[in-house]
Amino acid sequence: MAAIKELYFCTGNRHKFNEVAEFFNGKLKVIQADIDVDEPRGESFEEIAKSCAKQAYKKLKKPVFVEDAGLAIPSLGGFPGTYSAWVFKKLGNDGILKLLEGKTGARLAAEFVSCIGFCDGKAIKTFNGICKGIIAPNCRGNAGFGYDPIFQPAGHNETFAELGSGKLAISHRSIAVGALQKYLRDY
Amino acid sequence: MAAIKELYFCTGNRHKFNEVAEFFNGKLKVIQADIDVDEPRGESFEEIAKSCAKQAYKKLKKPVFVEDAGLAIPSLGGFPGTYSAWVFKKLGNDGILKLLEGKTGARLAAEFVSCIGFCDGKAIKTFNGICKGIIAPNCRGNAGFGYDPIFQPAGHNETFAELGSGKLAISHRSIAVGALQKYLRDY
Repeated sequence: MAAIKELYFCTGNRHKFNEVAEFFNGKLKVIQADIDVDEPRGESFEEIAKSCAKQAYKKLKKPVFVEDAGLAIPSLGGFPGTYSAWVFKKLGNDGILKLLEGKTGARLAAEFVSCIGFCDGKAIKTFNGICKGIIAPNCRGNAGFGYDPIFQPAGHNETFAELGSGKLAISHRSIAVGALQKYLRDY
Repeated sequence: MAAIKELYFCTGNRHKFNEVAEFFNGKLKVIQADIDVDEPRGESFEEIAKSCAKQAYKKLKKPVFVEDAGLAIPSLGGFPGTYSAWVFKKLGNDGILKLLEGKTGARLAAEFVSCIGFCDGKAIKTFNGICKGIIAPNCRGNAGFGYDPIFQPAGHNETFAELGSGKLAISHRSIAVGALQKYLRDY
């Protein structure tokens, strides 16, 4: 990481920033840049991350990354997907539980997706992380944010919100950040 | 309408185009323009209609209008609102019925919203139409499209999909188109 001393993370979401800053702790200074970018519509996390990273660099003129993340439920056609934040604001976890009421087995499968878009003015790179699991039958736990209380990662009996900091080691976000860090090591 | 002989309606939705063309029948030639515009995110039908009308004019260089429409359910924070088409694709009418299961009275209130954005290169104008009603307890009727089978307009016992062409006289879309036509008469 010799070439980059500090890196901007463009997000208005404080929870997200704190989780990501934790991963970089002692490795690289990460600064929150709460600047407006136009998040395009569309169902590709990757396309959204690329577009936002490009816009963020254009405004900052410094190496910057963005993260587009969401919950995708295959039995609902990938809903809420790239509109996860908006759907959460409207329906909350109760809405997702209601939509899955009475469903069992594979129809409860879900995955958290993270796509980081990085731009340094020369290239735009993306780094992905996926954490598979199921939607729990009800909200459990107080840690984390968003859909964390209803998402139970594979191999665990706890939801992300129950796992607390234990979430960090296995989350979609940690996988994507790990891929970004690997890239930055050889930068 | 002396100044405008033909008018482009930018939409990829054939159902929408047919409904609107019907309103203009014998008054003005309306031509479907299925061109790509970037529909921005956001919760304002008006802002979306303005942005799309501006983009459509930029590509066509001819007087053009767009229509942004959707179903808004106040007890769900306005969901699905400006994301109605996407939500319909993912959840369908069954999803909306599921979300409202067990709710009664005012919590079933809903409105169909239409906002037309018109651009002739000089000005961008918007014209709104709202049709209030309720979400029916189940799907009824085969006419129309999208959420028509679950939307029962105020003062009627039938859903939009049961009303068939009777929908045209009272719909959100007819009100917005009426306002556009009034504007074009004095154009």
